[in-house]
Amino acid sequence: MTVHADLSPTLQLAIDLIRRPSVTPLDADCQKQMMQRLGDAGFTLEPMRIEDVDNFWATHGQEDGPVLCFAGHTDVVPTGPVTAWQIDPFNALIDEHGMLCGRGAADMKGSLASMTVAAERFVADYPNHKGKVAFLITSDEEGPAHHGTKAVIERLAARKERLDWCIVGEPSSTTLVGDVVKNGRRGSLGAKLTVRGVQGHVAYPHLAKNPIHLAAPALAELAAEHWDNGNDFFPPTSFQISNVNSGTGATNVIPGDLVAVFNFRFSTESTVEGLQKRVADILDQHGLDWHIDWALSGLPFLTEPGALLNAVASSIKDITGRDTQASTSGGTSDGRFIATMGTQVVELGPVNATIHQINERVLAADLDVLTEIYYQTLIKLLA
Amino acid sequence: MTVHADLSPTLQLAIDLIRRPSVTPLDADCQKQMMQRLGDAGFTLEPMRIEDVDNFWATHGQEDGPVLCFAGHTDVVPTGPVTAWQIDPFNALIDEHGMLCGRGAADMKGSLASMTVAAERFVADYPNHKGKVAFLITSDEEGPAHHGTKAVIERLAARKERLDWCIVGEPSSTTLVGDVVKNGRRGSLGAKLTVRGVQGHVAYPHLAKNPIHLAAPALAELAAEHWDNGNDFFPPTSFQISNVNSGTGATNVIPGDLVAVFNFRFSTESTVEGLQKRVADILDQHGLDWHIDWALSGLPFLTEPGALLNAVASSIKDITGRDTQASTSGGTSDGRFIATMGTQVVELGPVNATIHQINERVLAADLDVLTEIYYQTLIKLLA
Repeated sequence: MTVHADLSPTLQLAIDLIRRPSVTPLDADCQKQMMQRLGDAGFTLEPMRIEDVDNFWATHGQEDGPVLCFAGHTDVVPTGPVTAWQIDPFNALIDEHGMLCGRGAADMKGSLASMTVAAERFVADYPNHKGKVAFLITSDEEGPAHHGTKAVIERLAARKERLDWCIVGEPSSTTLVGDVVKNGRRGSLGAKLTVRGVQGHVAYPHLAKNPIHLAAPALAELAAEHWDNGNDFFPPTSFQISNVNSGTGATNVIPGDLVAVFNFRFSTESTVEGLQKRVADILDQHGLDWHIDWALSGLPFLTEPGALLNAVASSIKDITGRDTQASTSGGTSDGRFIATMGTQVVELGPVNATIHQINERVLAADLDVLTEIYYQTLIKLLA
Repeated sequence: MTVHADLSPTLQLAIDLIRRPSVTPLDADCQKQMMQRLGDAGFTLEPMRIEDVDNFWATHGQEDGPVLCFAGHTDVVPTGPVTAWQIDPFNALIDEHGMLCGRGAADMKGSLASMTVAAERFVADYPNHKGKVAFLITSDEEGPAHHGTKAVIERLAARKERLDWCIVGEPSSTTLVGDVVKNGRRGSLGAKLTVRGVQGHVAYPHLAKNPIHLAAPALAELAAEHWDNGNDFFPPTSFQISNVNSGTGATNVIPGDLVAVFNFRFSTESTVEGLQKRVADILDQHGLDWHIDWALSGLPFLTEPGALLNAVASSIKDITGRDTQASTSGGTSDGRFIATMGTQVVELGPVNATIHQINERVLAADLDVLTEIYYQTLIKLLA
């Protein structure tokens, strides 16, 4: 693969990575390329293929002192219909507006390039830096995520590795690079509720129990419930019913049961057990015959202001002049797995406006800015 | 086809009709057989095939005086798995308990045999009877019912035919023949409600409008609403939601709309327009963006005590010793179409415990009793 020699090292590497079509859980040798670069820079490499997922762990430095880890994923979501793209999604061209276009440009091969180049520069400039610079890279963040970051963290925890700080390269910015960093995420708790009734004929309702009629007031109460107020870092816990289905299809039959699927995005002001109990209490108050299968997708986590957040924010300010905003909004990320080690976790990456969409793109110049921010953060924490 | 010569004329005819497999809209020459018998008895015959449905109209008597019409259908519902039957459903055998078994035994070839034999006897015994004896027979009562009784009634009304009284042979009895007659039916009003929201991601509910959350309180209120008190003849109007569906199947997507299918069984204390307005008011009070497709299956009708109900009740009392009970419960029947002519309509037939089921059956002796009741009613009204 050839790229223009006049492009920055970050953009050259970003283009190289985008041109490898690594749709989840494929890696398409992206990690091989990153390991080649990091190995050349003096990192100790540890590939960790787990089941069908490629991951690697790499470190540079000494046992004493703090550990700053860059985390990210080489896998990308599918392109959707390729003909809908203005350019081949795996060709990685920079258009006339200076936008680097391609699947993964924003989520998150641009970040991978920036963190690799920043680390290369840092260990070259500060060969005897404090502590360790580390990389935790997976190829299954967009998929089931069972054999990716979660599994690597379990292995690292089992051998008592310590991660003090972690920068996840997820595209956190909303309008301008660095305008937002994520310092936590809400928890996600899913549920499939079944309300049982008794099937019958609509002309003889006294012989049946209509689960739609029985469930409707309870669903209304759940939807109207105020779960918590959130706090300085989290918005209030939200509850959403995503699916409700009941009925035989026939218009003259009262159905036997109703199934509703709902999801909590919850703050650190609520607990899984507390939410489960409050739901159960509401269903019981309505006298329902019910059953719930719960599925916990992730606990909430939070990195309060401290060394990592300060270093990131002041680096953003130094490079861009912007006061970054720390936010816990949005969906889940692999940060939830890393935070279980007691690690301070911040997500910092390019603008996320086009992620997962047709014509995913990012301002090419932003990736060079991001490299500088990562580099300055390394200096502030480990130089 | 051979039947035992020692069986009554009613049972011989009932068995003949059951052995013709007339699953809706097929007639399988049942009407040809009935017309043969009625023609031989001196009736004027008028076959009315409408689209794919066989119907006929037959009369005996004179223009002056009242018209008493027997109404019914030759079509039957499907058998279901034939191997689940104790006997071939179209073989019409009388078992060791004296039960005539077969598809249509109760609904309603038994009644057709009884009314045919009763009319034959009546016109033979009273050749110069008052007014007219009539038959209105269709082969599409169990199906869409568009080209059956409804269409025949429209033709009769267009040419100013008058029907004073009508006995529909639907199996009205619950335990013993004649214990219940139907002197009306509730109306049936169906609806498909769509509540519109705005689709979105469950993590960003402020950007979406969840139609499940919006609709739940309104559905709860509709289900709890008291529509009317009914009256001496009708139970209170009932409302049942038979189907509710919303959701994309994905657990992280707030759906764009919700569809609920519901049905009113309504008394003469409510009107179609009144029910529609009250539903609209409730939906509007909840601020919903909604649309309803209404489908009126039938208006309620009622035959108050009068000449027909008196004649039927006193005939039942004479033959069985029973005080019959007039009821408007249960589903709809073709009586709703006939009542639109201002006709007094009563449904009187055998015990309905097994209709539409595997091993449909009726006590053979009950059909002879039914013939006597029909015959006595003819005498009371037209002799």
